[in-house]
Amino acid sequence: MTTQLQASVPATPRGKSGTMIANVFRGVDRFGIEEVARPHARAGEAVIRVTLTTICGTDLHIVRGEYPVQPGLIIGHEPVGVIAELGDGVTGYQVGDRVLVGAITPCGQCHACLAGHAAQCGHGSGYEAIGGWRMGNTIHGAQAEYVVIPYAQANLAKIPDDLSDEQVVLLADIASTGFGGAESGGIRIGDTVVVYAQGPIGLCASLGARLMGAAKVIGVDGDDHRLAMARRMGVDTVLDYRHQDVVAEVKRLTGGGADVAIEALGTQATFENALRSLRPGGTLSSLGVYSGKLQMPYEAFAAGLGDHRVVTTLCPGGKERMRRLMEMVRSGRVDLTPLLTHHFTLDKIRDAYRLFSERADGVIKVAIRPA
Amino acid sequence: MTTQLQASVPATPRGKSGTMIANVFRGVDRFGIEEVARPHARAGEAVIRVTLTTICGTDLHIVRGEYPVQPGLIIGHEPVGVIAELGDGVTGYQVGDRVLVGAITPCGQCHACLAGHAAQCGHGSGYEAIGGWRMGNTIHGAQAEYVVIPYAQANLAKIPDDLSDEQVVLLADIASTGFGGAESGGIRIGDTVVVYAQGPIGLCASLGARLMGAAKVIGVDGDDHRLAMARRMGVDTVLDYRHQDVVAEVKRLTGGGADVAIEALGTQATFENALRSLRPGGTLSSLGVYSGKLQMPYEAFAAGLGDHRVVTTLCPGGKERMRRLMEMVRSGRVDLTPLLTHHFTLDKIRDAYRLFSERADGVIKVAIRPA
Amino acid sequence: MTTQLQASVPATPRGKSGTMIANVFRGVDRFGIEEVARPHARAGEAVIRVTLTTICGTDLHIVRGEYPVQPGLIIGHEPVGVIAELGDGVTGYQVGDRVLVGAITPCGQCHACLAGHAAQCGHGSGYEAIGGWRMGNTIHGAQAEYVVIPYAQANLAKIPDDLSDEQVVLLADIASTGFGGAESGGIRIGDTVVVYAQGPIGLCASLGARLMGAAKVIGVDGDDHRLAMARRMGVDTVLDYRHQDVVAEVKRLTGGGADVAIEALGTQATFENALRSLRPGGTLSSLGVYSGKLQMPYEAFAAGLGDHRVVTTLCPGGKERMRRLMEMVRSGRVDLTPLLTHHFTLDKIRDAYRLFSERADGVIKVAIRPA
Amino acid sequence: MTTQLQASVPATPRGKSGTMIANVFRGVDRFGIEEVARPHARAGEAVIRVTLTTICGTDLHIVRGEYPVQPGLIIGHEPVGVIAELGDGVTGYQVGDRVLVGAITPCGQCHACLAGHAAQCGHGSGYEAIGGWRMGNTIHGAQAEYVVIPYAQANLAKIPDDLSDEQVVLLADIASTGFGGAESGGIRIGDTVVVYAQGPIGLCASLGARLMGAAKVIGVDGDDHRLAMARRMGVDTVLDYRHQDVVAEVKRLTGGGADVAIEALGTQATFENALRSLRPGGTLSSLGVYSGKLQMPYEAFAAGLGDHRVVTTLCPGGKERMRRLMEMVRSGRVDLTPLLTHHFTLDKIRDAYRLFSERADGVIKVAIRPA
Repeated sequence: MTTQLQASVPATPRGKSGTMIANVFRGVDRFGIEEVARPHARAGEAVIRVTLTTICGTDLHIVRGEYPVQPGLIIGHEPVGVIAELGDGVTGYQVGDRVLVGAITPCGQCHACLAGHAAQCGHGSGYEAIGGWRMGNTIHGAQAEYVVIPYAQANLAKIPDDLSDEQVVLLADIASTGFGGAESGGIRIGDTVVVYAQGPIGLCASLGARLMGAAKVIGVDGDDHRLAMARRMGVDTVLDYRHQDVVAEVKRLTGGGADVAIEALGTQATFENALRSLRPGGTLSSLGVYSGKLQMPYEAFAAGLGDHRVVTTLCPGGKERMRRLMEMVRSGRVDLTPLLTHHFTLDKIRDAYRLFSERADGVIKVAIRPA
Repeated sequence: MTTQLQASVPATPRGKSGTMIANVFRGVDRFGIEEVARPHARAGEAVIRVTLTTICGTDLHIVRGEYPVQPGLIIGHEPVGVIAELGDGVTGYQVGDRVLVGAITPCGQCHACLAGHAAQCGHGSGYEAIGGWRMGNTIHGAQAEYVVIPYAQANLAKIPDDLSDEQVVLLADIASTGFGGAESGGIRIGDTVVVYAQGPIGLCASLGARLMGAAKVIGVDGDDHRLAMARRMGVDTVLDYRHQDVVAEVKRLTGGGADVAIEALGTQATFENALRSLRPGGTLSSLGVYSGKLQMPYEAFAAGLGDHRVVTTLCPGGKERMRRLMEMVRSGRVDLTPLLTHHFTLDKIRDAYRLFSERADGVIKVAIRPA
Repeated sequence: MTTQLQASVPATPRGKSGTMIANVFRGVDRFGIEEVARPHARAGEAVIRVTLTTICGTDLHIVRGEYPVQPGLIIGHEPVGVIAELGDGVTGYQVGDRVLVGAITPCGQCHACLAGHAAQCGHGSGYEAIGGWRMGNTIHGAQAEYVVIPYAQANLAKIPDDLSDEQVVLLADIASTGFGGAESGGIRIGDTVVVYAQGPIGLCASLGARLMGAAKVIGVDGDDHRLAMARRMGVDTVLDYRHQDVVAEVKRLTGGGADVAIEALGTQATFENALRSLRPGGTLSSLGVYSGKLQMPYEAFAAGLGDHRVVTTLCPGGKERMRRLMEMVRSGRVDLTPLLTHHFTLDKIRDAYRLFSERADGVIKVAIRPA
Repeated sequence: MTTQLQASVPATPRGKSGTMIANVFRGVDRFGIEEVARPHARAGEAVIRVTLTTICGTDLHIVRGEYPVQPGLIIGHEPVGVIAELGDGVTGYQVGDRVLVGAITPCGQCHACLAGHAAQCGHGSGYEAIGGWRMGNTIHGAQAEYVVIPYAQANLAKIPDDLSDEQVVLLADIASTGFGGAESGGIRIGDTVVVYAQGPIGLCASLGARLMGAAKVIGVDGDDHRLAMARRMGVDTVLDYRHQDVVAEVKRLTGGGADVAIEALGTQATFENALRSLRPGGTLSSLGVYSGKLQMPYEAFAAGLGDHRVVTTLCPGGKERMRRLMEMVRSGRVDLTPLLTHHFTLDKIRDAYRLFSERADGVIKVAIRPA
């Protein structure tokens, strides 16, 4: 994939105000805090003063060189903050409003968005799918003191006063993606669901399965901290792939196979195990981002003749979805604060990357606070 | 409606065994325990020795003459029991198996069933919709020591050993119907749902809404016992129509209207209030059985131009659904035993009808035990 | 309903260019061609030079005083034209592009649009549903030489070179609404569908039912011209309510009731007949705009216990939908040009209203050409 | 897979009548007409005197040893015939009724059927998915003078008098499967659809896509006869993979990728081409039966981040579906008789297999008439 960095990645300060610090990607394993120009809002955009953000597994792929972005890019795509500037044409907001912004920022006005495929957003006019994920990918991101939000009208979700930054920061990506995986699985009251990998997204997918009415949620991982967190988040049964034939155990626990399997890691092994864990006619909802070709083991299905569904889901976005997720927090159905296991200030973000990358000290997610 | 009592209502004992006691309908306000012939299973049928059953609001309609059935009919349609006899062609079961049977008993083999409309079951062959509800309606019912289950192959759901009769008896009708109403409403994670009337079915609809991921469930009633039970079953906010403009309050609490309104009583007032409580584009899921014409207040919608859905749902049945609901009990998601507020033996069933009819003593549902 | 005319209804010319002629509503039965200021595009808007438009039944309601709009408003909401001006921030288009615009013009960026309810568009920011229909309702409309399109980015669908204005003008409202009614009905291969009223929208609903795979489409009306047009548009069987008990005939033709009934007029009689024409479990898709309360005849259902759906649908909009409908014309599946029975120039629009209002001379739709 | 031939494969005549001829599988490449006992109906079954049947690609797999069945089995699974015997408990039919039976014969009464997965039918009682395909697979099949239909109540669809055997015989398998693939694809009005392989099932999938409202159906094959038949069946554009880069051409014709791709052959190449032909967010509906592992080329998706669906579908069955398909024939929407390119009597069935296997003489499907 060749990624063209767009015009909104400024080489030099754009004007009237000063500078800020931000985490800038310079090349493989070369990234860190720099002083850069503070951005400003053009028509349709907003600038958010970031009050809390986090690091995503995708950011690790970027700094390792496994997902290409242009050198000079500020990375990060999960901002909570306060509106600092509003561009022309953005209505219904005030500077100073606290807002949550999804990891993807759909325009709402292109063919893909109007067809219900916000994750394939074509940025306004074209028929072409470009992709809804822009912050920290093709435009500057959120691991900074300020970040520009494109298509602000569609993407600023006001945070109710009774919710803290910590309560909502994980909704932007992992909850939205994890719940989206549960929704794509079409989970119904009484279903049995198995979730392969209990990292941040897998934990949210497990919670999403439970929220949708699964009778039994089985969580699979091989990390003691994550299995413990899975139990804490309401998973009914945890399986440790280091010690068990997990597919056989899922089949035993479900009386022949799960109704829905959710894959939340992006490896051949988890994909194939998820597929083999299904009852005939079941649904595999895949959230992982794979590299290269997957093997799809057709012979795994009962009698060689299974009818099934494989659905892949990207993070859905938009302010309406953010609003709904915040309502789930307000009503007490969703509490992701236990996943924020570690806290750092923005200037110490390299330490946060190291901890997160090494999965040290039972880390699940790190909170990054600019000030 | 003229109801033809079918051949399986025997005038005289059919054979080898003796008699049993049962609650027989004889006319308006004339019903009670009689000694009648114990039934036997013909091909495709099973006889269940009833170990627990209950009284439904529809049974009250029957004894009041508001819903016509043929005099001589044993009423009741929510049996838990033990298989006493298996007719020819029913496989995979043993006499002695504990089973739960849904309130409707679809054949699975007619055009309606094969089209996914089990509630309109045509009983085997015909194109005509006849109706899946048969027990205590067109054939003898479950308020008896023994009951015949038609299409037994499709309708006997084995009860796991770790579940008691009390834990499953309310799944047969009120949970199946109430959850069905939530499902027909298409509730999604983050929705706001209002449920009009918190009787047995309304309480289950409220629970169903929560199970499917509603962010906020609002329960409306005018009975202190029921409002208290609604809180106990997990309703977030209860509204008392005796003291509040409930539609206005729903609009205030939801910021303009509920995503889904569930009607669980069957009156013009609840139907209309439910419709007026919706946001534009919302869904009304109606579970009540109405008499006569309903007024559908189109002018109630914002700007006169609302797009919305009104869905009515009957109790779904079949052993697969019973199995799934029992799994929800096993996992602890569903516990309806608090609704079984009173217990009677079958020979005292008239006392139970009186209590249930008068809504005395905070009754929600009564448990009827034959022995 | 109190309708607030928005700022874009100019009292005086806004500037640099000249004037145009337009059909201005002044009061009940007072409307006609006036010379007014030619509008200009603000940020996010476009101005279209109208090359073809038409009159909708809703326009008749307006001029008769049955649907309130503010005096001074230019009416009409079905424009085909050429881009004359593009406001700031509208990208991917050129002045001179031929475009089709839907009757409703959703913003794509409010909570309603992002939730998939474009017809309830909240115009950008708010949680409140306002309504996607704006042109000729709350802002100036299309029966003019020029019209402003709000949220132009989401609403300009380029017309392929191989399609004429006449081929696409009826897609903006009647085809979009009629097909939307078929889609809301959930029509599947092999369904039987009855459509009550074969006016412009009913004819399109009939065609939509056929396009989705109905085995049999029955069209009901009482006008010889419309019944003839229904046959021409592919309706399998036409029923004339002047000479037949149409509900009984639908039940006979469908072996017990239609799978889907579509109501396309907005009267108690058509609504009730549509409901009575359904098989138990069927779906009523209602397109009509009703005034006052509807009677919903519950007793009409078989055995008093029907499960069914009533879905109302408003015209969906957006450039993606317009694009898809134009593809149907290009492939030859859809040809609505026979419905354009009469042609007028804009200056003769009062004659067109008279003909259309009186349903004279077999008129179905009138084509209005500004120049 | 080890296939256990069930008790209904009789070693000796079961009774009162005589013998019949049938096509018996004896081993790889060893099959042909034998005189065997004429079967009789047990409880719940029917015996059909076959008046027309055909050969399926799966039958070729059987006789080539690629799909295992037990030696001694009569093969074939697409019967049209006349009821010759009715077992106990089958109601609503008369001996002499003309009936169509689907390729799969779901029981309607097991957990899989009641959950809507007829293709995974568990044969009555069990939780286990066994598979709805029985005739010519695990019980004797339809290439015979008589065939037993299990679960007759759910599987006998009366043929309207105005339809010939030739008009309905191909509905049992190829139309049901092909249309099912279009339905699983979720095709909507205005979609673009590409169908890989224009054999019998692919031709029906193409027709199904058109019936559901596709704006453009593209058919891919490399056989002149099949491409010509595709044009005749209403495919808009045919592509010949021998002379074109079909994926590139699909992308060009659809402006970036098809909304839905249907795979109807069961090879790695067609699966992968279908996947690569999709727009981001599109759906792959796969009908082929694959052997071994499939490669699923994730990198094929735009920008590496596609959200998409892969759905596999087996032939749906049941008398309701057969009834609906026959209604499509009656209304003239579906005419598959051109696919019946060759006719044989049952005693010449080896000639028919040879022709069909070699794809000689432009054969699409062969009609086999017992008498």
